[in-house]
Amino acid sequence: MAKARKHNYKKKAGQVPGTAIYTGSKSSEKLFIEVFDYNETQFTEKHLTDVSETFQFKGSDSITWVNLNGLNHVKEIEKLSKHFNFHPLVLEDIVNISQRPKIDEYEDYFFVVLKMLYYDKDEKIISEQVSFILGKNHVLSFQESEGDVFDAVRERIRTAKGRVRTMESDYLLYVLIDAVVDYYFNIIEILGDKIEDFETDIFNGNATDDVSQNIQNLKREILKVRRAIFPLREVINRIEKSDNALISKQTLNYYRDVYDHLIQVSENIDIYREMIWSLMDMYMTTISNKMNEVMKVLTIMASIFIPLTFIAGIYGMNFDYIPELHYQHSYFILWGVMIVIFIGMLIYFKKKKWL
Amino acid sequence: MAKARKHNYKKKAGQVPGTAIYTGSKSSEKLFIEVFDYNETQFTEKHLTDVSETFQFKGSDSITWVNLNGLNHVKEIEKLSKHFNFHPLVLEDIVNISQRPKIDEYEDYFFVVLKMLYYDKDEKIISEQVSFILGKNHVLSFQESEGDVFDAVRERIRTAKGRVRTMESDYLLYVLIDAVVDYYFNIIEILGDKIEDFETDIFNGNATDDVSQNIQNLKREILKVRRAIFPLREVINRIEKSDNALISKQTLNYYRDVYDHLIQVSENIDIYREMIWSLMDMYMTTISNKMNEVMKVLTIMASIFIPLTFIAGIYGMNFDYIPELHYQHSYFILWGVMIVIFIGMLIYFKKKKWL
Amino acid sequence: MAKARKHNYKKKAGQVPGTAIYTGSKSSEKLFIEVFDYNETQFTEKHLTDVSETFQFKGSDSITWVNLNGLNHVKEIEKLSKHFNFHPLVLEDIVNISQRPKIDEYEDYFFVVLKMLYYDKDEKIISEQVSFILGKNHVLSFQESEGDVFDAVRERIRTAKGRVRTMESDYLLYVLIDAVVDYYFNIIEILGDKIEDFETDIFNGNATDDVSQNIQNLKREILKVRRAIFPLREVINRIEKSDNALISKQTLNYYRDVYDHLIQVSENIDIYREMIWSLMDMYMTTISNKMNEVMKVLTIMASIFIPLTFIAGIYGMNFDYIPELHYQHSYFILWGVMIVIFIGMLIYFKKKKWL
Amino acid sequence: MAKARKHNYKKKAGQVPGTAIYTGSKSSEKLFIEVFDYNETQFTEKHLTDVSETFQFKGSDSITWVNLNGLNHVKEIEKLSKHFNFHPLVLEDIVNISQRPKIDEYEDYFFVVLKMLYYDKDEKIISEQVSFILGKNHVLSFQESEGDVFDAVRERIRTAKGRVRTMESDYLLYVLIDAVVDYYFNIIEILGDKIEDFETDIFNGNATDDVSQNIQNLKREILKVRRAIFPLREVINRIEKSDNALISKQTLNYYRDVYDHLIQVSENIDIYREMIWSLMDMYMTTISNKMNEVMKVLTIMASIFIPLTFIAGIYGMNFDYIPELHYQHSYFILWGVMIVIFIGMLIYFKKKKWL
Amino acid sequence: MAKARKHNYKKKAGQVPGTAIYTGSKSSEKLFIEVFDYNETQFTEKHLTDVSETFQFKGSDSITWVNLNGLNHVKEIEKLSKHFNFHPLVLEDIVNISQRPKIDEYEDYFFVVLKMLYYDKDEKIISEQVSFILGKNHVLSFQESEGDVFDAVRERIRTAKGRVRTMESDYLLYVLIDAVVDYYFNIIEILGDKIEDFETDIFNGNATDDVSQNIQNLKREILKVRRAIFPLREVINRIEKSDNALISKQTLNYYRDVYDHLIQVSENIDIYREMIWSLMDMYMTTISNKMNEVMKVLTIMASIFIPLTFIAGIYGMNFDYIPELHYQHSYFILWGVMIVIFIGMLIYFKKKKWL
Repeated sequence: MAKARKHNYKKKAGQVPGTAIYTGSKSSEKLFIEVFDYNETQFTEKHLTDVSETFQFKGSDSITWVNLNGLNHVKEIEKLSKHFNFHPLVLEDIVNISQRPKIDEYEDYFFVVLKMLYYDKDEKIISEQVSFILGKNHVLSFQESEGDVFDAVRERIRTAKGRVRTMESDYLLYVLIDAVVDYYFNIIEILGDKIEDFETDIFNGNATDDVSQNIQNLKREILKVRRAIFPLREVINRIEKSDNALISKQTLNYYRDVYDHLIQVSENIDIYREMIWSLMDMYMTTISNKMNEVMKVLTIMASIFIPLTFIAGIYGMNFDYIPELHYQHSYFILWGVMIVIFIGMLIYFKKKKWL
Repeated sequence: MAKARKHNYKKKAGQVPGTAIYTGSKSSEKLFIEVFDYNETQFTEKHLTDVSETFQFKGSDSITWVNLNGLNHVKEIEKLSKHFNFHPLVLEDIVNISQRPKIDEYEDYFFVVLKMLYYDKDEKIISEQVSFILGKNHVLSFQESEGDVFDAVRERIRTAKGRVRTMESDYLLYVLIDAVVDYYFNIIEILGDKIEDFETDIFNGNATDDVSQNIQNLKREILKVRRAIFPLREVINRIEKSDNALISKQTLNYYRDVYDHLIQVSENIDIYREMIWSLMDMYMTTISNKMNEVMKVLTIMASIFIPLTFIAGIYGMNFDYIPELHYQHSYFILWGVMIVIFIGMLIYFKKKKWL
Repeated sequence: MAKARKHNYKKKAGQVPGTAIYTGSKSSEKLFIEVFDYNETQFTEKHLTDVSETFQFKGSDSITWVNLNGLNHVKEIEKLSKHFNFHPLVLEDIVNISQRPKIDEYEDYFFVVLKMLYYDKDEKIISEQVSFILGKNHVLSFQESEGDVFDAVRERIRTAKGRVRTMESDYLLYVLIDAVVDYYFNIIEILGDKIEDFETDIFNGNATDDVSQNIQNLKREILKVRRAIFPLREVINRIEKSDNALISKQTLNYYRDVYDHLIQVSENIDIYREMIWSLMDMYMTTISNKMNEVMKVLTIMASIFIPLTFIAGIYGMNFDYIPELHYQHSYFILWGVMIVIFIGMLIYFKKKKWL
Repeated sequence: MAKARKHNYKKKAGQVPGTAIYTGSKSSEKLFIEVFDYNETQFTEKHLTDVSETFQFKGSDSITWVNLNGLNHVKEIEKLSKHFNFHPLVLEDIVNISQRPKIDEYEDYFFVVLKMLYYDKDEKIISEQVSFILGKNHVLSFQESEGDVFDAVRERIRTAKGRVRTMESDYLLYVLIDAVVDYYFNIIEILGDKIEDFETDIFNGNATDDVSQNIQNLKREILKVRRAIFPLREVINRIEKSDNALISKQTLNYYRDVYDHLIQVSENIDIYREMIWSLMDMYMTTISNKMNEVMKVLTIMASIFIPLTFIAGIYGMNFDYIPELHYQHSYFILWGVMIVIFIGMLIYFKKKKWL
Repeated sequence: MAKARKHNYKKKAGQVPGTAIYTGSKSSEKLFIEVFDYNETQFTEKHLTDVSETFQFKGSDSITWVNLNGLNHVKEIEKLSKHFNFHPLVLEDIVNISQRPKIDEYEDYFFVVLKMLYYDKDEKIISEQVSFILGKNHVLSFQESEGDVFDAVRERIRTAKGRVRTMESDYLLYVLIDAVVDYYFNIIEILGDKIEDFETDIFNGNATDDVSQNIQNLKREILKVRRAIFPLREVINRIEKSDNALISKQTLNYYRDVYDHLIQVSENIDIYREMIWSLMDMYMTTISNKMNEVMKVLTIMASIFIPLTFIAGIYGMNFDYIPELHYQHSYFILWGVMIVIFIGMLIYFKKKKWL
């Protein structure tokens, strides 16, 4: 991953500010554009591949959601940008996928960047950048590639379920952000499960040798998620505090609700973070406990047999005159003594709770 | 637990905002509604099962407390919600039990969510969500199921003890919140006892092998309690700061008092948190100390008998010419030498304080 | 201690707010009331047992300090409270000794709660709650039992030393708080000595087995002191910031001075806290160092004698044909070899700095 | 390095404030001055060695960038300083290279200090101080020695690429700062790679003995980078907040963009910091795991052979009457017994998962 | 040190506020007073021992610096205090040397307390309190004893170097504070060197047994320095923010400069602090690494010779019928077997990288 990033920065370094260069690695063959145009009574859905066909929706009275997939088609996006009159920095930020979540207020539009999080097949967290432009009667959204978390939203627009068809573009932006945030709950929940499984593994001694690296990876994942989610709180907060006419008083309650959800997710992340941080300690004590057990076995074996071997050694000596050697029952008496020592030792270790 | 949560989020994901779905697992067979209607001189108590019977109390001059138990009866609550004219998000939050404590101010009512904490039979902390609607002359409260911490409040209303019967609905909300907060003290106190017992166990070496997991569980419990209690401070603070006519100047002192209690609880939680965090270190030193002891036993046994065994080995050799073997007192002299070595070793270890 | 606390909370749970219940465990047989009434020229000191005798001092022109000892006499304090017209919550807080330091401003009086800290005979820190009511011409103080840190203040009033006799009641409150804060220095100083002694013990290996528990206790003590002292800064700060006529501009400098002292104490506490937190690490390295030493002794003994014993074993074998056995000087040559090995080992361990 | 620093401070101690003394160690033989003078249509580039030749550019209508290399030529810089009328403290700060990033606003110019970071050949991070003076129509920049990150900027001015030729001096300052910040991304990326490599090494056990020192060095590097980058956020923030006429409303968006980049870099630094801090723990568990393995080998060997040796010792004894010695198959039976013990031990250790 | 402190607090406890008692331990035989009286053209330097001779300088038009050494001469300082009309608390603070750095603004003078830090001969950090009174045309400074960091300032006044002779008393205060702050750089630099040396020692294994105590001492030193320096930032900040006429707009830039220096020092201190905190971890891994090495030696020796000794034991048995004993080459074959085992073991340990 580090290599990929290096590549990206290289692409950008020393560039004229406002230069639009796609810094991601996903390349869709074709630009894929969805358009949803609706008002309370009417609804149109179009799938386009040419940006110029979207130009007609600028300034229309109905609400329009233009969803672009394929940030590698920079030229096309530039065309759109020119028509909709974006600031050059906005265009640059849309295609530079290493943005942190942020909001830029311009006179007649809002530019919002956030991170869509989901798990891929290998249970690795993928973070995809999604940008939104909120204008008077339209929301433009930009994604790296097809596939997203907005299917329920599409369905709701099509079927006029909920109040989305009766509200303005600010409400549309809200439902899109809300869909992204709802997915965050999935992410942290799976993270929570991972941590618990991991804890159980460590405790049961099933942990393989790469425990410490797994913990390190978990830490990295948590930090990644944190970085995607935490700045979004500030973004939502600034939408709420903004007195721009684009955001109606009516939708504020909804943004407040998203904000509450984000706080909830954030709290969970911080709790998981603390839990992970203490997993290492837990693992350390497990190792030490195991070593204690190993040492006990060694000590018990050695403490019992070393003295006995010594006694046997004594009567293996070749002195001319060792009186015990010649008594008839010496050998059996010796066995008796050794068994007494053996049992004595066992009792001693039992009392010390080593057995 | 993780499984249950997963389930809940699944239920919600992609839903239209403002959709009321109960996310908890408790299902009461029947909705159970208590109504307390009172003023300084009169008092009525009713137990109902149909929400529509409560509609008459809206807008009455006397103070009414409507207490609903059974959030799984979403339909009924929706009816109530419509009559009392709640915002759809309020309805959604009442039945979604994964809220964090919060307050939403609407024009003519306050919506307060908090967590009622209590221990179940297994000494596990249960966190139940309770929502309050504070209106001009009424307080509505919503609980997952029957059983709560408000018995003393009920008694006080019935017997006109204290000033509750002489005050407005804002005071009623205060006494209900105060009852919940009073229970927090029980929680942290039992937590404190647990920590102390645990500390004693670790120190006395009575700690079983699952110490590190128990500590982890205790951490999790503290974090859970923290998450329930800390946001409530902000809630109370915003009630105090609010200049809404619903909160009279007279009751502000009482809310201030609850706030002080919450600060006290919070401080205790943070102290317990620090204590738990250092329990792991304490346990680690205990393990190391034990290992030290094990090692000492091994070292003492080995250091004493290995040299002696060596000596015995010498005189077990079969060389033709070993002069010592043929002296008459060799054997006894050797015993003498060995006893001297033995005692010397003991003195040496005594001096090192290993014995 | 935990048990005592549990008891206290139980006493309170579910009570009507504003109910005065003494939550401490000290019960003085009799209420003991001291009254100091003075102005620049006159001075009266009285020792009373009946609160009604203090009523005459309300509203007098001279400055009056009424000091009550014995919070278990709740009824009497209630009588006083009624005469002096306190808010019910004030009365409740005076006798509930688990308050954290705080200030409540009422229209014509200030209510201040703080903690008087001192060491008992066993060098355990005792925290006793003291409450003050600052009125126009009087200061009332409430203590759990007799015995306090105000003797120097009494003396100063009697002998008209310093400016206390020439100033208003706000200055009297200042000198009382100042006396309490002065004692904090004693507390932290003894704490500092304890930590240093402890450090020396650990370092010298004189530490007994309960080191980790002692450290835990020290932590607990620091946290207790912290909790008593830190909120007081906020209290003093609010007195300074208050624009109530009760606090004259002239005394502000003095309160500022107390504030500076509190900051000084707080800084010391935080430094001690850090020192204690690292004591555990220090202890851990001490244990590990000791284990290292033990291991070295074992390794040296075993490494030297095990090979030698092996050699002796070789020549104890009973093969028919072992040529070395029959050479005349074999035995002495073998001794030579063994001594060379022995010395070689010693040199080896010397070089490794294990000896 | 410590030695070098010591030297520098000595040079300065006790000096009159405002005394210009170069505190770095790089001495360029000659002062090297680049001048870029341009407007939308015209462009001049000059390479000078005498500061007085730059004086003509003060107050001209075209935008001028004067870039000085070689801070050891203090006298020359003083001349420039006098002509451009800097505050003595500005002059002092330009040549004192131990400044932290800061901005000082004067009436008609801004003084900005920041740190240019780059890796030298040994992959060591070099931090070079660069100071900027932003005046009405000019930007002066001061570097310790030749070689910088501004080549792309020079090219852009020469070729009129981007908007730099059409904007004021505030935009020129922005592109210069932006070039520096772009390099920060390289720095943190290489740091990230280092950490990951290091982690892999530790985990694979390839870590050499100086792991803990390498970690310590990495910590030091992170702290150094942090100290260079973090204060710059405040600098950019104050440029944004400033209402000085030098900064046009138009460029604010660009400074906002740099600010966002800095936040991004800062977040990465803090993540890397956390990762490094936990590397030590990871290393510690690796060590403990290794010791566990060593102990297991020892314990297995000792536990197996010590009892067997004891048995052999028994039958090496010279008692007159040991019946087993004279049975014909004793020797082979004994071998059988010993093999059974041997295999039993192996099974035991297998079950304990030590093998 | 603790003992000394105890003594000091005892001296003060229960005293009337505003009582001047010297709490230090340095007693100069005589009060030593330096007076520098100057304006742009004239300059007088006097060395006095009687405070009353300084009274003439109050209210003169020229700038006067009165520097008193010897705080044990409380009576004399009281006389001065009365003449210059200080608040009693100021007098108390001058001679009570356990102040933390602070500033008190009075109507016509500023009272500033700070800590002068320097190393004594034993490389121990000495913290000496210096107090300043800044009046209209004079600065009074109070030191415990002779010897300070102001020699360069004296020289500058005498020789009219820099701008000190042309500026007001606020600039004089600045140069004095600046001289103290310049010395802080020396302090932290030596601290930095100590830490680096220490790190090298630990890493090279040259660390003696008192490492953990040395680290603890270093921690204590850092905390001491921190406590002396950090509050000074607030002091300087309040001078800057003050709109008192005593501070002219012209000198604000200079105070800003001192502030920047303090921030720089503070950052360094915090970096050193982090480095020290991780030294303990580093030491811990060093210990564990050493133990690992010890264990390896033991394990290798034991694993090689224990099996060999067992084999030798076998053929030392006295069974009547051990066929191997009677073959002619048995003995040499056995040696062969044992050498093969020996070499096999060596290869095994080599492969495990223990050798």
